[in-house]
Amino acid sequence: MAAENPNFQNTDPPTVLVHRLPTFDFPPGNRLSTHFHLLDPITSPPTSPVLLHSIRALLCVGPVPVTPETLNRLPSLQIIVGSSAGVDHIDLTECRRRNIAVTNAGSAFSEDTADYAVALLFGVLRRLPAGDRYVRDGFWPVNGDFPLGFKLGAKRVGILGLGSIGSEVAKRLAAFGCSIAYFSRKKKTSVLFPYYENAIDLAANSDVLIVCCALNDETHHIVNKDVMVALGKEGVIINVGRGPLVDEKQLVEFLVRGELGGAGLDVFENEPNVPKELLERDNVVLSPHCSVATPESFEALQDVIIANLKAFFSNKPLLSPVQKD
Amino acid sequence: MAAENPNFQNTDPPTVLVHRLPTFDFPPGNRLSTHFHLLDPITSPPTSPVLLHSIRALLCVGPVPVTPETLNRLPSLQIIVGSSAGVDHIDLTECRRRNIAVTNAGSAFSEDTADYAVALLFGVLRRLPAGDRYVRDGFWPVNGDFPLGFKLGAKRVGILGLGSIGSEVAKRLAAFGCSIAYFSRKKKTSVLFPYYENAIDLAANSDVLIVCCALNDETHHIVNKDVMVALGKEGVIINVGRGPLVDEKQLVEFLVRGELGGAGLDVFENEPNVPKELLERDNVVLSPHCSVATPESFEALQDVIIANLKAFFSNKPLLSPVQKD
Repeated sequence: MAAENPNFQNTDPPTVLVHRLPTFDFPPGNRLSTHFHLLDPITSPPTSPVLLHSIRALLCVGPVPVTPETLNRLPSLQIIVGSSAGVDHIDLTECRRRNIAVTNAGSAFSEDTADYAVALLFGVLRRLPAGDRYVRDGFWPVNGDFPLGFKLGAKRVGILGLGSIGSEVAKRLAAFGCSIAYFSRKKKTSVLFPYYENAIDLAANSDVLIVCCALNDETHHIVNKDVMVALGKEGVIINVGRGPLVDEKQLVEFLVRGELGGAGLDVFENEPNVPKELLERDNVVLSPHCSVATPESFEALQDVIIANLKAFFSNKPLLSPVQKD
Repeated sequence: MAAENPNFQNTDPPTVLVHRLPTFDFPPGNRLSTHFHLLDPITSPPTSPVLLHSIRALLCVGPVPVTPETLNRLPSLQIIVGSSAGVDHIDLTECRRRNIAVTNAGSAFSEDTADYAVALLFGVLRRLPAGDRYVRDGFWPVNGDFPLGFKLGAKRVGILGLGSIGSEVAKRLAAFGCSIAYFSRKKKTSVLFPYYENAIDLAANSDVLIVCCALNDETHHIVNKDVMVALGKEGVIINVGRGPLVDEKQLVEFLVRGELGGAGLDVFENEPNVPKELLERDNVVLSPHCSVATPESFEALQDVIIANLKAFFSNKPLLSPVQKD
């Protein structure tokens, strides 16, 4: 069908293999299929091994793992186009070895994720979901005033990972009168916010820790027991990155023992399972991994995916390549 | 006791009559009683009419009504110091007639209330309390992904009442990439945001309406059926002002019929009672009138109250006088 589209000047659109879990797909009406011939093993008849051998581009929808076994079935693969900001589900070492390029969602989700980090922080400090439950459960007329929340202004906010999401978080919270500091793999010369050499020092000088760095071997459990001790018993942890950035078992223990002030969590170590100890706590806001979930983000994501694939098929520089070192 | 305090140089601290509901009081440890002799009829023995006749200053704690009958018992009254931003519970016409000054909370609550307006907007657009319920009720592992929310950036936000709260709301939402417009009693020459002549025109050009004006005869039900029609079926109403600024009966009908996108409500027409039709709706965030409720706000409020009373007792200009016209 697409071959009859005059935009393609009688050239078949390039074929892209879709790699996804059955539960995860782009919304109907997405624009990808007007530019590419999408081969989706979940909806199409079984794909022949011969065809798989010729596949050059893989579109990875959502956090589906890309393992050496996945790559073994695709010997001609040259690019993996991811649809998320983090690419911890893709074996980057193996991609480097095989010289396969990887792209991510670029900054398509940065604003929405940064917005959501602020929303979660409000949710914890000003107890928004807890207040909403208080009203819905009919406690207001019976028990009277709802307990005080905490002011956002003048809070010292430490940002773990000052990439495109972290930078947007900083911009937003500065408008509320928060002071910002950060820890990243390296100090950014163009940034004026104070830099700390490690997560513990950042936590020791922060009231709130916002976790939005990439997940990799170095950052796994970067928010560990020592960081929680440094943050202190009034401290708040917001995680919009990946669940395993935070030692969840320790987090639960710190919250249960009252050694942390609260947490706003969009991600968990074992999604969609959430530690049951958190379900009854009013100083915790729980969110079903939806920091990026707006129609506007998905439109922006399609732009990024299309741009990366078009660049690849026309030998131009990729829009959002992932550094694999 | 206070008379023995050397700070008072053997002068008795001035007497201030406290006017409050039994359920509403300052938190323990407040600083007011170190500066003034507070006479509180609820905790003290019955106050003699002779003493009441000599009272010059009344401290109004919370939204307790000040009626002509209240004033008749206090013939020497010269000032009413309010503890809230809005003073719709005080009969200003009667105060003007009797030449009684009135002060409000000034800007003590402006930042917290503006923060809360943003938090409620996030709560509606990004479905924060609904997502939190989804996780707590165990739906995530069973039903999978939570429905998409909406991006805050690029939304057209109309602010009803660009006073100290509205101005802080504008500053915050501008940092999220929203465009701002407003309607106030009069166009503000120092403000660059577009001004609309009335609430309907503002609503017609907005995706979100944030209600933060004072409640008086002119603004009662300023958000009426016509404004809701103009805002449209995707429109969102946030109210951090007073319940009666919005025609609540119409609001409920519009939400139930799907003719509004959502609402974030910290105030209601008949608090603490909330329309039961709202209790089951996921596109509504309900809050038990706590937009100003942080310890930091109450500290700032005490500063404002002490400053107003000290100014009054030393014949200096008041810090936050309310215009009674």
